[in-house]
Amino acid sequence: MKFDVLTLFPEMINQACSHSIIARGIESGLICVNAINPRDFTKDKHKKVDDTPYGGGAGMVLMCQPYFDCFDSIEKNSDTEVIILSPQGKTFDQKMSTELSKKSHVILICGHYEGFDERIKIYTKAKEVSIGDFVLTGGELPAMCIIDSVCRNIDGVLGKIDSAHFDSFSDGLLEHPQYTKPRVYNGLKVPEVLLNGNHQEIALWRRKQQLITTYLKRRDLFDKFAAICNDKTDLKLLNEVISEFK
Amino acid sequence: MKFDVLTLFPEMINQACSHSIIARGIESGLICVNAINPRDFTKDKHKKVDDTPYGGGAGMVLMCQPYFDCFDSIEKNSDTEVIILSPQGKTFDQKMSTELSKKSHVILICGHYEGFDERIKIYTKAKEVSIGDFVLTGGELPAMCIIDSVCRNIDGVLGKIDSAHFDSFSDGLLEHPQYTKPRVYNGLKVPEVLLNGNHQEIALWRRKQQLITTYLKRRDLFDKFAAICNDKTDLKLLNEVISEFK
Repeated sequence: MKFDVLTLFPEMINQACSHSIIARGIESGLICVNAINPRDFTKDKHKKVDDTPYGGGAGMVLMCQPYFDCFDSIEKNSDTEVIILSPQGKTFDQKMSTELSKKSHVILICGHYEGFDERIKIYTKAKEVSIGDFVLTGGELPAMCIIDSVCRNIDGVLGKIDSAHFDSFSDGLLEHPQYTKPRVYNGLKVPEVLLNGNHQEIALWRRKQQLITTYLKRRDLFDKFAAICNDKTDLKLLNEVISEFK
Repeated sequence: MKFDVLTLFPEMINQACSHSIIARGIESGLICVNAINPRDFTKDKHKKVDDTPYGGGAGMVLMCQPYFDCFDSIEKNSDTEVIILSPQGKTFDQKMSTELSKKSHVILICGHYEGFDERIKIYTKAKEVSIGDFVLTGGELPAMCIIDSVCRNIDGVLGKIDSAHFDSFSDGLLEHPQYTKPRVYNGLKVPEVLLNGNHQEIALWRRKQQLITTYLKRRDLFDKFAAICNDKTDLKLLNEVISEFK
């Protein structure tokens, strides 16, 4: 899978690619991340990539020419997905992440400080994506979040050890609490049930904790889960949680 | 404002701090970011920071001792806010960002690959925060998003030029489209209204575009805005948008 990232700060992307799961995916040849700078494509003699907005107002707007030409320089295929990082976009979530990981080629277009000339969105036919309802200085951090998240879904990138973790949202529920040695630390104890070796009991306790955590912290996810849940054990636990915590 | 980031990958944080708005905030002395590694605090002879989970299961769990001791090494004040990056957390948004920027000291605790021993959350009394409903390999990218977003709210970090931009969410609406030179590029034209110099007309057009964009792309934000809107001009535009696009 190949990612092309259009960014005025390619070193931000390249540095992020030298760490962690993205680095591992690159080393194993499963993914490829290429940062490409629209500034290298500007025809302006001062290497300008932005200009003042039509209609007035503070700030600068990223210009069509360098972004169009930078975009055109990238080889695409019928499977290429084009994403522009923008606060106006659809909010990125695990479902979008899973869908993206089925693509062979993703182009991520980042702004920095400034807004895009609207025609860049039109020309590239990019899907606008946001990672959340907060303002950031550029699209680089969101692009890296998307690459990290998508990589995790690609077969072979995660080892067995890691893959079972951080699996919140995989079935729409938050994770149960985890504990490791020692049994008591600073007066804080591990719940007894985790120490008794009864695997069925542990599984039930963990499932109920997932439901409790989700009920208390993310009622929206709990309600979604409750609406589609048809597993007998889950339904029993779910009703227990509602009656105990309502 | 000081950020202490507990992370097993301090170089990820340090590199991110060498760019963009975070670098600018550090250079101007308005913010300070300190990455601190729990591995430097482990009493295990193999420098181990994780162990297998009680109750079984794949993956490893981050241990109390290195995180407790690392956390204890940080000088706190009555204004210190402690955040643990976790998919179980409250979703970060612009409101949380604004509130955080009023603090003098924020501690961000990142996991990586693995889950935390639940007692780390209890001991540090950390607020759990997530940046969205997607799975990432570690808390470092979310921590950087939070630092970037919070920095932008601190007086003096943004210059005048930047501050007017990316202001989506500031009044609960998405931004209007922006255009810059040339008037026509590749057959794509700038809307006439932006070229006529009538500032009142431009302001009205932009406000309506904000409402249209929000209505079409983020109905949830539009509905929230509509529920509290009491500006006469906004109400008129709002009703126009609803009747034109419903």
